[in-house]
Amino acid sequence: MAVRDVRPGLRNEEGIAAVLGILKQTFGERFQTGQSFREQHAHTTTYLPPQLPDAVVFVESTEDVKAVVAACAAHHVPIIPFGVGSSLEGQVNAPSGGISMDFSRMNRVLHVSPADLDVTVEPGITREELNRELRDTGLFFPIDPGANATIGGMTATRASGTNAVRYGTMKDNVLSLTVVTADGEEIRTARRAKKSSAGYDLTRLFVGSEGTLGIITAITLRLQGIPEKIGGGVCAFPSVEAACNAVIMTIQMGIPVARIELLDDVQIRACNAYSSLDYPEKPTLFLEFHGTEETVALQSAQFAEIAADCGGDEFRWTANAEERTKLWNARHNAYWAGRALASGLDGLSTDVCVPISRLAECVVETQADIEREGLLAPIVGHAGDGNFHVLVLFDGKDPASVAKVEAFTERLSRRALAMDGTCTGEHGIGQGKMAFLKEEMGGAVDLMRAIKRSFDPHQILNPGKIFAAAE
Amino acid sequence: MAVRDVRPGLRNEEGIAAVLGILKQTFGERFQTGQSFREQHAHTTTYLPPQLPDAVVFVESTEDVKAVVAACAAHHVPIIPFGVGSSLEGQVNAPSGGISMDFSRMNRVLHVSPADLDVTVEPGITREELNRELRDTGLFFPIDPGANATIGGMTATRASGTNAVRYGTMKDNVLSLTVVTADGEEIRTARRAKKSSAGYDLTRLFVGSEGTLGIITAITLRLQGIPEKIGGGVCAFPSVEAACNAVIMTIQMGIPVARIELLDDVQIRACNAYSSLDYPEKPTLFLEFHGTEETVALQSAQFAEIAADCGGDEFRWTANAEERTKLWNARHNAYWAGRALASGLDGLSTDVCVPISRLAECVVETQADIEREGLLAPIVGHAGDGNFHVLVLFDGKDPASVAKVEAFTERLSRRALAMDGTCTGEHGIGQGKMAFLKEEMGGAVDLMRAIKRSFDPHQILNPGKIFAAAE
Repeated sequence: MAVRDVRPGLRNEEGIAAVLGILKQTFGERFQTGQSFREQHAHTTTYLPPQLPDAVVFVESTEDVKAVVAACAAHHVPIIPFGVGSSLEGQVNAPSGGISMDFSRMNRVLHVSPADLDVTVEPGITREELNRELRDTGLFFPIDPGANATIGGMTATRASGTNAVRYGTMKDNVLSLTVVTADGEEIRTARRAKKSSAGYDLTRLFVGSEGTLGIITAITLRLQGIPEKIGGGVCAFPSVEAACNAVIMTIQMGIPVARIELLDDVQIRACNAYSSLDYPEKPTLFLEFHGTEETVALQSAQFAEIAADCGGDEFRWTANAEERTKLWNARHNAYWAGRALASGLDGLSTDVCVPISRLAECVVETQADIEREGLLAPIVGHAGDGNFHVLVLFDGKDPASVAKVEAFTERLSRRALAMDGTCTGEHGIGQGKMAFLKEEMGGAVDLMRAIKRSFDPHQILNPGKIFAAAE
Repeated sequence: MAVRDVRPGLRNEEGIAAVLGILKQTFGERFQTGQSFREQHAHTTTYLPPQLPDAVVFVESTEDVKAVVAACAAHHVPIIPFGVGSSLEGQVNAPSGGISMDFSRMNRVLHVSPADLDVTVEPGITREELNRELRDTGLFFPIDPGANATIGGMTATRASGTNAVRYGTMKDNVLSLTVVTADGEEIRTARRAKKSSAGYDLTRLFVGSEGTLGIITAITLRLQGIPEKIGGGVCAFPSVEAACNAVIMTIQMGIPVARIELLDDVQIRACNAYSSLDYPEKPTLFLEFHGTEETVALQSAQFAEIAADCGGDEFRWTANAEERTKLWNARHNAYWAGRALASGLDGLSTDVCVPISRLAECVVETQADIEREGLLAPIVGHAGDGNFHVLVLFDGKDPASVAKVEAFTERLSRRALAMDGTCTGEHGIGQGKMAFLKEEMGGAVDLMRAIKRSFDPHQILNPGKIFAAAE
């Protein structure tokens, strides 16, 4: 299975033993080596086989982080930062062993500035916790990758999700980071000003670096005002092309849709079965609009016109919260509905992203591939960004089934690359997409490696992610 | 004059002589060593003393760029990329001599994709040329730093300007770059997909790197639909605080202003004198709204209410293009009006950026400093971003006057830093702000240097910018 580099790296047994001794003494009960702790911290939502860390440390402060880094740096032992383990490409695996650094207890809101529309948090807070804490301010943090991920994990993997089409991805919403580097220094990547041109953009360098360049200990995020009104709607189309044309026209006209999601016919069928719904089994767009009563109505009317021009069915929409939830039910439960198509099987969620002009072509070719191979694989897309997910159902215990799904994801990545797209729009490289990074980035990977080498010469920061451990 | 590091670096005379020989042979008439060419290419809009390159090469293709890099890399000779020379912090100076690489002939539009709202250009095209070429597509490139800068220069300095409040800065609008590295390799930092999580964000690393990490040879930019309607308006306020409160409320309410500019009373006085206008000599906000007839009217009405709540005078606005130009006249001519306050003097345009909640305080303290020192220095701010410029008028031939303005800009930078702001919101570090980078970024500067060292070990890429040449 050449395309999946999950080879164990070299283990520094002596160093690991030394670090375990040090951390046990320093962290007492917050240091755990039990099998269940270790298993839970190697758990990822992909089918990649788990690779357990040697221990888990529950950090509660930057001082704790520095203490772990000091021990691991002295003995050249890997550190794997851990949020909630919702990453999809093996980012929390420990191919060379080492220490899983659990941030669940480092989850405070440090500072909210309503006038500046920003908040500073510790990395372990989840996005839902954050939004609960912000509720009284009238502000919210918009990025929604689906899972209730931690802000630290979302930052480290450059997460995005359904409303990136309006609010951007993590790269657009992180103002500044505090980071502990491999040599134990604490640095801050930027001030709290909304923009700066002072030197290299270290903030964006750490966003998406998957824990391989430094350990994030605080994050300043941009916030948005909670919309006065939220509208939602659904529209079925005769073909993926027709749906994608409607998306392109919507974006071109500058309608500021908050979400515009594509579900293919297989996914709709899955949703109908899962939630006893009766959506027409056709490619369908789910939309959400944020604004005032007036602007939400205006945007919906504009979209309805576009949908009609593109041959869509009637556009059903509502500004009533309860009805909106009902309309959006299928989208919200898409993942579980997909899994329920074959409840005994494993599910591999993979993603690619292409220029929006190529989205229909890429989805249609992928559907043909799925059919040709006899796979069961519903498709859900963040259509406004040209980004889509395929949930491939397969039997993880059957090598032939695994080989088939790997060959499929390989073709999918190459298809996206051939269309000037990326092998991963929002899941990251981790271990699962390592083989395609070089194909996608060519000589630019050498620059990435040069940065990695200069920031982390002893390879203690999440080794074996983005680049193979051995290199 | 300690704060301004414009010390000449070491000159590699032998290497320079060798490179001049090679390039003369390769480039013929496109290679120039005449004094006037060299002077024009060391011209910057600041008062920093010019430091001339040894020669100017007019590149016309990536192959030309590679040829120059090969020669300069072999002989360890500096390359200074040159757009139109509108940078403000000495970015095109040649403290160690070397080759100015002029991009004015490498200014083609390579590819427009209206469906994807993107365009790929060569670095030498200016933003006005680009928008002229785009006109028939119904699209435009919004970033407007004032000067008719090149897209390459704007990318290299992470430019922003008046409408960054709505459209972001260059970091938000560059999708991908093609770059020639110090060892002559051509790399591409990203595909044309709207988002990606494939490895480190090299795009954002090169944006704002001021030519010190690689030479940009192509840029893919996000475009916007030309607004159906543009509205503009003006409103005077009793104080800077009142104006800034109106700005904060506007942003908090999510009114998508395209521009919201603050001119202080001195700047208004200058504009009145320069263009025979009769604006009240009070802190004044200039606004622009992009949208449809309806949304522009709605936004203007919303702002008028906010302005009234904040004690502003009547908000005069119009959706008529001609009247808008008239209303905005003062803002458009602000720089020249400021210079005309004392036509015999030199002008130093400097900028800082603070969290918007601190903007009023920072401007008011700066005004007090100006008054205390007896300086003449109008203030113009991109208020929605917390970013403002001070145009200090001084006598460049009088050392006492120079010392005074340097001490002033030093205090200004420190004032912004004390408010969790940056010493430069959009002009870059160049040579002029080098002394403050360490104060602003602390240990993070070591990471920046590590990147510089690993990308450019022989210091041939615009040495002496961002970091001192000797280091």
